[in-house]
Amino acid sequence: MRVCRRATFNAAHRLFRKDWSDEKNNAVFGKCNNPNFHGHNYVLEVWIEGAIDPATGYVIDLKIVKDLIKNEITDRFDHKNLNLDCKEFLNLNPTAENIAVVCWDLLRSKLDTKYELSIKLWETENNLVEYNG
Amino acid sequence: MRVCRRATFNAAHRLFRKDWSDEKNNAVFGKCNNPNFHGHNYVLEVWIEGAIDPATGYVIDLKIVKDLIKNEITDRFDHKNLNLDCKEFLNLNPTAENIAVVCWDLLRSKLDTKYELSIKLWETENNLVEYNG
Amino acid sequence: MRVCRRATFNAAHRLFRKDWSDEKNNAVFGKCNNPNFHGHNYVLEVWIEGAIDPATGYVIDLKIVKDLIKNEITDRFDHKNLNLDCKEFLNLNPTAENIAVVCWDLLRSKLDTKYELSIKLWETENNLVEYNG
Amino acid sequence: MRVCRRATFNAAHRLFRKDWSDEKNNAVFGKCNNPNFHGHNYVLEVWIEGAIDPATGYVIDLKIVKDLIKNEITDRFDHKNLNLDCKEFLNLNPTAENIAVVCWDLLRSKLDTKYELSIKLWETENNLVEYNG
Amino acid sequence: MRVCRRATFNAAHRLFRKDWSDEKNNAVFGKCNNPNFHGHNYVLEVWIEGAIDPATGYVIDLKIVKDLIKNEITDRFDHKNLNLDCKEFLNLNPTAENIAVVCWDLLRSKLDTKYELSIKLWETENNLVEYNG
Amino acid sequence: MRVCRRATFNAAHRLFRKDWSDEKNNAVFGKCNNPNFHGHNYVLEVWIEGAIDPATGYVIDLKIVKDLIKNEITDRFDHKNLNLDCKEFLNLNPTAENIAVVCWDLLRSKLDTKYELSIKLWETENNLVEYNG
Repeated sequence: MRVCRRATFNAAHRLFRKDWSDEKNNAVFGKCNNPNFHGHNYVLEVWIEGAIDPATGYVIDLKIVKDLIKNEITDRFDHKNLNLDCKEFLNLNPTAENIAVVCWDLLRSKLDTKYELSIKLWETENNLVEYNG
Repeated sequence: MRVCRRATFNAAHRLFRKDWSDEKNNAVFGKCNNPNFHGHNYVLEVWIEGAIDPATGYVIDLKIVKDLIKNEITDRFDHKNLNLDCKEFLNLNPTAENIAVVCWDLLRSKLDTKYELSIKLWETENNLVEYNG
Repeated sequence: MRVCRRATFNAAHRLFRKDWSDEKNNAVFGKCNNPNFHGHNYVLEVWIEGAIDPATGYVIDLKIVKDLIKNEITDRFDHKNLNLDCKEFLNLNPTAENIAVVCWDLLRSKLDTKYELSIKLWETENNLVEYNG
Repeated sequence: MRVCRRATFNAAHRLFRKDWSDEKNNAVFGKCNNPNFHGHNYVLEVWIEGAIDPATGYVIDLKIVKDLIKNEITDRFDHKNLNLDCKEFLNLNPTAENIAVVCWDLLRSKLDTKYELSIKLWETENNLVEYNG
Repeated sequence: MRVCRRATFNAAHRLFRKDWSDEKNNAVFGKCNNPNFHGHNYVLEVWIEGAIDPATGYVIDLKIVKDLIKNEITDRFDHKNLNLDCKEFLNLNPTAENIAVVCWDLLRSKLDTKYELSIKLWETENNLVEYNG
Repeated sequence: MRVCRRATFNAAHRLFRKDWSDEKNNAVFGKCNNPNFHGHNYVLEVWIEGAIDPATGYVIDLKIVKDLIKNEITDRFDHKNLNLDCKEFLNLNPTAENIAVVCWDLLRSKLDTKYELSIKLWETENNLVEYNG
């Protein structure tokens, strides 16, 4: 049994590597390398797998997951510039893949080890990623 | 190859255990424990896995799945109070997880054993569960 | 210029009139007249029309609208039984139309008269109403 | 008869006024005033009203509208920082309302006067504006 | 007060005029002029405006609208080739605009004159039309 | 880590087997066997699994996947009659399952073997299939 909680956050970012030339960054990341940043409405699905607790009928109270997402993800990344405001991306290119890894690590560290964790992250309505550790 | 049919049903429910005190039910289930019930538009995805029949090009005719969902799920639960009207939940707390187990069991019992079955159930646009037996 | 804020609430209800016989209520309201109630995830769009304030660039700060919806609508109706828990419907059949009128009146009474108000209310993904006073 | 074409663009922005103190900007615009910017996936609906051309059965060929949106809106604003990269917002606070006015003006200047123009702009899935000149 | 019922139908069509040359049809209608047809999942919203009946709390029972749409629209156009199977389009180019006019006329002729009627028709997720007679 | 790109195409089709009688085709495929065809807005999700490239932070540049889908799928099937215009279905019944197999094969042949490939294909908002080879 897997349960899911969905949330959103809005952030600015820029795709580039400090150790690459402008030419190389433009060739690889194109318009995503705008030095003045662009932004997205990110949509996050947090999937937690476990057994149903026969006492409650829950795998996990989704209120707990909602609060976990707020504390670990949206309070940290919502209305932020991922490159400038978030230490997680000071030396990590904030691609959807890397954002997903960071979110997964943040959630995993606070989640009981009896649960499996998987996340989906939409960057646009046509682009998304899925990560399970 | 997996094929999916989507359907919806609207129902009232209340989360609580008869053998718990009001205090404990409130502490665990919060506003979902309203004794007068609340309700949801449930969205159900029924996923069936199997080989493509070379004669038809179908894994299974989705018209069959549509009728199966109507007979087993929506005729049973749509516009009902899950706690009061549905014998499946007389002694089972109708959490999304337990509703998913009940739906899966109802569908599984009518589905040819050559197929694998998995379902997703949305309780709200932000909360959902997935179950595969 | 019109601005809109969207919100959701989950509630149980039953369509019927106390002063009609069971036969008449069943004939008119069908399965929506289940005496044990059923329920919906209601989706509300609140549309406010006015001039852009040149100081802020806002018609109205949508944070104010968000709080207004919380205080007047979702705190009142979310996870409630509209017929039993909400005095607004003690003598008013909670059809989508009537719920929309009640929501509009509640919001209108708290909204500066310089704004026009219109609302949309989805009862299911296929049924909705629009009301502007 | 009205016809509509939908498009999206992704941009960074910050809500603030240069002529206000930090304190006042924070008080009015809150987290939207992050000096390092945040961002959104904007969704634009362009609605054009006119008579059906009996020769073609079109009010207007939506391919023309698609190209108009690309030339006037998405090439200008997609993957940009509205405050820093776009001269339209150098002295205009890029609220959803002001972005809608700018988009409407840009489209209106290129659209035959026989058509009426109206636009909707989503900033998030819960916040949107509508403008018709 | 306006109420809305949503429905879908799937059909093939081709945009062209019999009295135009192939060259002109290709120049005007492009890939929509494929002589072998292409197709769409059309989404129809039927909006009906009227007063709330104080007896029922309904503007109109949406079950009536659902049946009206089935009888007049989906039984007629679903899983059909609009150009070849539907007499309404034998001499009328099945653009979204013209389909909307035909749907509106079919519904209007069966709807009590005390109601105002408006429809929206999606041809794709990015293209739609609105018509109110 | 899996990444996904979404795209759409609009096509006509008919479900039938040339080697079956009209009676048998009607019995098995019902209204989908309309000899004049019907059509759909197909929605395709292309999922690619692989390791994150530490140089770029990408599993694969989704611009590459976007172009791959355009070249292999939408240029081939968009605004086409699958039965008449597309050699892939001259002797293959264009069910959603078979379309998914054809799309998967076309994409697989152009995709680096270091990636796993899976696709989802929506035929309507209620019917979809998933295939991973």
